Amino acid sequence: MEFRFSSHIQGLQSSAVRDILKLTQGKQIISFAGGLPAEELFPLQAIRDAALRVFEGGKASLQYGLTEGFLPLREQLCGRMAVKGMQVEPDQMILTTGSQQAIDLLVRVLLEPGDVVLVENPTYLASLQVFSLSGLRVIPVASDKDGMIMAETERLMREYKPKMVYVVPTFGNPTGRTWSLERRQGLLDLCSHFGVPILEDDPYGEIKFNAADQFPTLFSLAGKADGSCVLYTSTFSKTVAPALRTGWAMGDRRVMGMLAKAKQAADLHSSALDQQTLDQLLRHFPLDAHIRKIGEAYGARLKQMEALLGSRNWPDVQWISPRGGMFLWLEFPEALDTEALLRAAVAKGVAFVPGAAFYAAAPQRNMARLNFTYTDGERMELGISRLSEALGEFTARM
Amino acid sequence: MEFRFSSHIQGLQSSAVRDILKLTQGKQIISFAGGLPAEELFPLQAIRDAALRVFEGGKASLQYGLTEGFLPLREQLCGRMAVKGMQVEPDQMILTTGSQQAIDLLVRVLLEPGDVVLVENPTYLASLQVFSLSGLRVIPVASDKDGMIMAETERLMREYKPKMVYVVPTFGNPTGRTWSLERRQGLLDLCSHFGVPILEDDPYGEIKFNAADQFPTLFSLAGKADGSCVLYTSTFSKTVAPALRTGWAMGDRRVMGMLAKAKQAADLHSSALDQQTLDQLLRHFPLDAHIRKIGEAYGARLKQMEALLGSRNWPDVQWISPRGGMFLWLEFPEALDTEALLRAAVAKGVAFVPGAAFYAAAPQRNMARLNFTYTDGERMELGISRLSEALGEFTARM
Repeated sequence: MEFRFSSHIQGLQSSAVRDILKLTQGKQIISFAGGLPAEELFPLQAIRDAALRVFEGGKASLQYGLTEGFLPLREQLCGRMAVKGMQVEPDQMILTTGSQQAIDLLVRVLLEPGDVVLVENPTYLASLQVFSLSGLRVIPVASDKDGMIMAETERLMREYKPKMVYVVPTFGNPTGRTWSLERRQGLLDLCSHFGVPILEDDPYGEIKFNAADQFPTLFSLAGKADGSCVLYTSTFSKTVAPALRTGWAMGDRRVMGMLAKAKQAADLHSSALDQQTLDQLLRHFPLDAHIRKIGEAYGARLKQMEALLGSRNWPDVQWISPRGGMFLWLEFPEALDTEALLRAAVAKGVAFVPGAAFYAAAPQRNMARLNFTYTDGERMELGISRLSEALGEFTARM
Repeated sequence: MEFRFSSHIQGLQSSAVRDILKLTQGKQIISFAGGLPAEELFPLQAIRDAALRVFEGGKASLQYGLTEGFLPLREQLCGRMAVKGMQVEPDQMILTTGSQQAIDLLVRVLLEPGDVVLVENPTYLASLQVFSLSGLRVIPVASDKDGMIMAETERLMREYKPKMVYVVPTFGNPTGRTWSLERRQGLLDLCSHFGVPILEDDPYGEIKFNAADQFPTLFSLAGKADGSCVLYTSTFSKTVAPALRTGWAMGDRRVMGMLAKAKQAADLHSSALDQQTLDQLLRHFPLDAHIRKIGEAYGARLKQMEALLGSRNWPDVQWISPRGGMFLWLEFPEALDTEALLRAAVAKGVAFVPGAAFYAAAPQRNMARLNFTYTDGERMELGISRLSEALGEFTARM
């Protein structure tokens, strides 16, 4: 039996991160590659207690749930969104299997193969995979430290008539970039004017190193859900734990209705046990204090990594210090190919993600994404020391 | 902002079951509509204990998991499959969010919009929705109590060159039909000959009223995973509980590799907490004895429903008694439209699913699907009594 595969799945590149994780399996590799949160900070006891309360609720908790997701959790989430200036009702929100599923389903609902989507340059790898799986044409928009450059965005909108703009405006992946208020407002104005939906992907927005920082979401700037061009997604993976695989999408009621139809076909609903556990967690656990603690811890880890990098005297390595999130985006000298460097690094026992995979077109080959949240202390020190060794030998050969 | 929706999502009908559930919300309706398992039989205590053991394993249990699913659970599942004559390795298996997701992802991996899929007539509604969402052309094959009629299957294969055949050969939905061994072997031979993948959907196969009954899966008849045309999916939703949303797909290693790429884009992975809980459950809970208990209980419920129907003297209502599963498929006199009957029934406080939704084309309008697993005892009696009343008034008006 010879199987024939759909053209889009054949065109889909396996994730670089995934391939690296395979490369490192079973070895004593220190990984700065994955986007993994710090396990030490998972609120295990509180999640356990929350799950026990769900089980105390009886056997009905184990039955099929609503496609849209467990209503009490949606209600609580709407309250949390309101605190961040986002006005949304439970029927303008759908719970998903992580925010990754929200991205996939929104694309299936709103776009056709061949449609154009505009993205930051560079942007989140797994979203590029969704776009590829759906046969979209991805056009990267020139971007700097403040976000997409608006003149370019407008020019490309006129030229390509995109059917969606995809952005991670706060503590972006891979760059750690945070959009300025002007750029946020600028994109919102452009998309409102041209009638183009914005998919605002905000998995990291709450992971701030300085709790006082305020970066209004595009969704909050739009001021409403119905009729707004902003469709928003976020997740509990970074603030609680990834294993519970719960994210959400929110926005215009009609879009959410279509999303529910698509989700019904895709998997009926996401884990009802996880959703009920998160609902109980939100009722009994001080999640906001916990998120502040995560932000502080990650800020300290970033400082450690920056200090280690600074002490190494690497030639011409540059970065912009992020104000939140999980990633440091390093720029090496132009001649240095980070995919080749990765092979040398893995041989030394350390991994990162070469930057090329994050570009929709014309990749810059001298970039590297380092995660600073999964390791710390001596292990981070050892990892940077190994990377330094690899870099030394590698550049000696260049 | 005016949203434009993709043509396939616009064409997707909302599920009849879903609409009925909405209709019944907040009312004291006795529902024979949903495919809901009996809540009384959920092994709540064992699931609770299993979850506690996962939490005892420490914080790493809350981290991101593999796209393919938790390996120890796949290993145990392979052992369970072997007992049923299905030889499969962990890397020929992927855990999914229920078997519904397995169906959706396999379609995305193997088919292109416009491709033809052959289905039983009638067949599972939510699969028809997946096919619609993916823009497939669905051709129903004339089927009788033993399965698809092979001469017709062969004729349609030659005429339409389908890219997939979708079947539920054991205790089908909605019909409760179980394919004969001859038809199983016949379809396998045809599809091997023509090189057409078979998607064997087997959510109910273990729910047997007579534990001694043996109905070999198409997958077991094929004798191997790699190179076989049979791709198989099943779920824990009916044997353990739906809230844990864990199903699996298995088959040719190369197809599973493509499926993993698609799943990575679709949601990275399904709930790792649910998968680990099921892994612990399988280690400490006698699942096979539990499944026998479910089969016996459901068999008794079916008997009760058949007795109630038999005692009612409805004019010309016929059915074939299923040997397992969750559904009774009623044929009313030809002139009786069950969608109209449903409205009368809901007014009386009872619901079922009109059969028309299960037909890919040319629906038979006098069929009804009744679930007999969710209710029993006096409540089932009351439900059938209400349905009887509705039918009496309805036919008096005809």
